[in-house]
Amino acid sequence: MGELLNAVEWRDDHLEVVDQTALPERLDVRKLTTAAEVVDAIRRMEVRGAPAIGVCGAFGVVLGLDEDIPLDELVAGIGSARPTAVNLRWAVERVARAADAGGTSDEARRFALDEAMAIWQEDREACTRIGEFGRIELASASRLLTHCNTGRLATTGIGTALGIVYAKAEAGEPVEVLATETRPALQGARLTAWELTQAAIPVTLISDTASGAALASGRVDAVVVGCDRVARNGDVANKVGTYSLAVLAHATGVPFYVAGPMTSFDPETPAGAAIPVEERAADEVRRVGGTVIAPDVAVWNPVFDVTPAELVTAFITDVGVLRPPFPESIGSALASRDE
Amino acid sequence: MGELLNAVEWRDDHLEVVDQTALPERLDVRKLTTAAEVVDAIRRMEVRGAPAIGVCGAFGVVLGLDEDIPLDELVAGIGSARPTAVNLRWAVERVARAADAGGTSDEARRFALDEAMAIWQEDREACTRIGEFGRIELASASRLLTHCNTGRLATTGIGTALGIVYAKAEAGEPVEVLATETRPALQGARLTAWELTQAAIPVTLISDTASGAALASGRVDAVVVGCDRVARNGDVANKVGTYSLAVLAHATGVPFYVAGPMTSFDPETPAGAAIPVEERAADEVRRVGGTVIAPDVAVWNPVFDVTPAELVTAFITDVGVLRPPFPESIGSALASRDE
Repeated sequence: MGELLNAVEWRDDHLEVVDQTALPERLDVRKLTTAAEVVDAIRRMEVRGAPAIGVCGAFGVVLGLDEDIPLDELVAGIGSARPTAVNLRWAVERVARAADAGGTSDEARRFALDEAMAIWQEDREACTRIGEFGRIELASASRLLTHCNTGRLATTGIGTALGIVYAKAEAGEPVEVLATETRPALQGARLTAWELTQAAIPVTLISDTASGAALASGRVDAVVVGCDRVARNGDVANKVGTYSLAVLAHATGVPFYVAGPMTSFDPETPAGAAIPVEERAADEVRRVGGTVIAPDVAVWNPVFDVTPAELVTAFITDVGVLRPPFPESIGSALASRDE
Repeated sequence: MGELLNAVEWRDDHLEVVDQTALPERLDVRKLTTAAEVVDAIRRMEVRGAPAIGVCGAFGVVLGLDEDIPLDELVAGIGSARPTAVNLRWAVERVARAADAGGTSDEARRFALDEAMAIWQEDREACTRIGEFGRIELASASRLLTHCNTGRLATTGIGTALGIVYAKAEAGEPVEVLATETRPALQGARLTAWELTQAAIPVTLISDTASGAALASGRVDAVVVGCDRVARNGDVANKVGTYSLAVLAHATGVPFYVAGPMTSFDPETPAGAAIPVEERAADEVRRVGGTVIAPDVAVWNPVFDVTPAELVTAFITDVGVLRPPFPESIGSALASRDE
C-alpha cells in the first residue's frame, strides 16, 4: 500500500489528490493550488468520500487565504461544493474559526493550516479506531457486502466500512468482500475492487441488481456501508442504493452496519427528511466511459438516498459502536465530542 | 412503430431478428438460417425476452429440420440454449410434437412450421390480452416502474409489462414509465428507454440503485415486471434485480405486478427453489461497451433471481388477472390451458 494511495496529501504549499475519475485505468495525481481548483475537484468527484472531501475542503481554505480570498467567501464557496455530506461544511467551518483567531493574516494562515493538518490527522486516526471497533463487533462475520467506496480513497486513513475490512485482514482474520458496482459512478467497480485487489484482499464484484440474490442466498454475513450524513435520530444519507440494501438486509435477516467518523453525524439535522439530496447530471446515467447506453432519454439521478434509523443494526464510529435507541446513543456521542 | 420493430419474423425460409445487442446505436436485422445460428443468437442475447426466445426457438426447429438434424437433437440443443425461461423449452417441445405427427419429412416440416407460426401468432395475441387486462387492473396507476425490457423487443407483440403501458397509451389514458437501467446487460437503458421514446411515451431512466429512493419518495403508483418462469406456487424467476424491487415495493406499500403469458408458467416447477438460475460471463459486469470498468476482478453474475409469491400482488396474464392464493389461481389457469 504505497504513499500514492493517500487520497489527499498536503505538500508544502499545495494539495495533491488522486484523481479518482481516472481509476482504475490510470493512477493520476493532481496538484490543486487554488480554492477554485479544490471546489472543482470535489464537484467533479475527482476527490470523493465524505471524510476525504472534508479534509480536501479544509486545505482548500488555506489555499484560498493564500489567494487573499475573504474567509466568509471561502466558507460559502467550498462548504457548498457538494450538499449532502456534512463533513465538508464541518471541516471548512472549523478551519475558518481557527483562522479567525489569528491577529494577522500570516497568523490566520498558520492557524488555518494547523487546523487543516489536525483534521487530516484526526480523520486518519478515526479510521483506525473505526477499523478496530468494527473488527471486534464483526468478529463472527467474515463475508461482508459493501456499497460504493469507503476505503483509503474515501478518507485519509484506512477507510470507514473498508477500514473494518483492512483491520480484519491486518489481524490475520478471514475476510472477503462482495462489492456492489454502485451505479451510476461505479465507485464499487472502479475503486473498491481496485483498492482491495491492490491489498490482496478477496473481493467479488456484483451488479447492484444482484445484491438481493446475494443476500437471499446466504452469501453475506453482514452489510457494512459508510455514511455521508447521519441525523440526530439515526437516519442515514449515503450513496444511492444504500436504502435498498438496508431494506433487503432487513428482509433477509442480515445485520446492516453503518461505519463512519463522528464528523459525519450532524447535530443540526434532526431527521433524514431534512437532508438535502444532491441530484447530478443525466449523462452520468446515459453513458459509461466512452459508451453511450441511452442517448437523449430523460433521467432522474439522485446520488444519495436516506435509510431510516430502524433499518440500522448499529453505527461503528471512532468513539465506539452506537446501538439503538439511536437518539440517545448518538446524542451522548455528539455531546462528548463537543465537550 | 414500423415493421422492423418485430423482434422475430419468419421470412419464407429463414428468420429475421433484431440484433438487440446493437441497440440503441444501430437497428441491425440479422438473418438466421440454421438451428446453430438460432442457438447462438439466443445465447448471445441478440434475441432475448422469454416470449421472443420461445418463438425464435420454435422456428429454430424448422430450420433444423431443413438441415436434416434429428428432432431429439434439436429439442435438446435449442431447448437448453438458455436455462431459466420456460417458454423456450415449452415452444421447442410443442413444435417437435407437431413434427412427430408428420408421416413424411415434408409433412413433418410443414406441421412444424404451422406450429411455430401458431406459437408466433398466439404470443402476439397473448400480449394484446395482457395489455388489456393490465390496463383495466391498473386503471388508477399511471406512474409505472418497470425493470429490464418486456415490450415489442421481448415478444412478438406489444409486450407483457410494457404491453400494459402501450395499451394505456393507445386508449388515451395517462401513463409514464420509470425504467431501471437493468445492469449488467442494460436492457432498460438500451431497449426500454429506446422503445418507449420511439412510441412517444414519457419515460425516465434511473440507475438500479435509485429504485429504492423512487419508491420511497412516492414517485411510483405500481411496479410492473415480466417473468421468465413462474412456478406452480407463484414464485417468479425474472431478470436479476426483480426480487429487490419486490422487497422494496412491499416495504413502501407500492403494488407489485408480474405480467406474462401462461407459456411462462411451468406446471413442472413446484416452487422457485427448483428454477435453475443462469450465471453469465464476468465480462458482462467488468465492462460496459468499450469501457473496462474493473479489469480482472472476480465476478458473480447471476442473470435472474427468484421473487417469492408472497411479494406478488397479482399476475396479469393472457387469461386474466391471477390473484392470491396463487396455487389455486395458477392451477386453474394452467388446467384450462391444457384442456
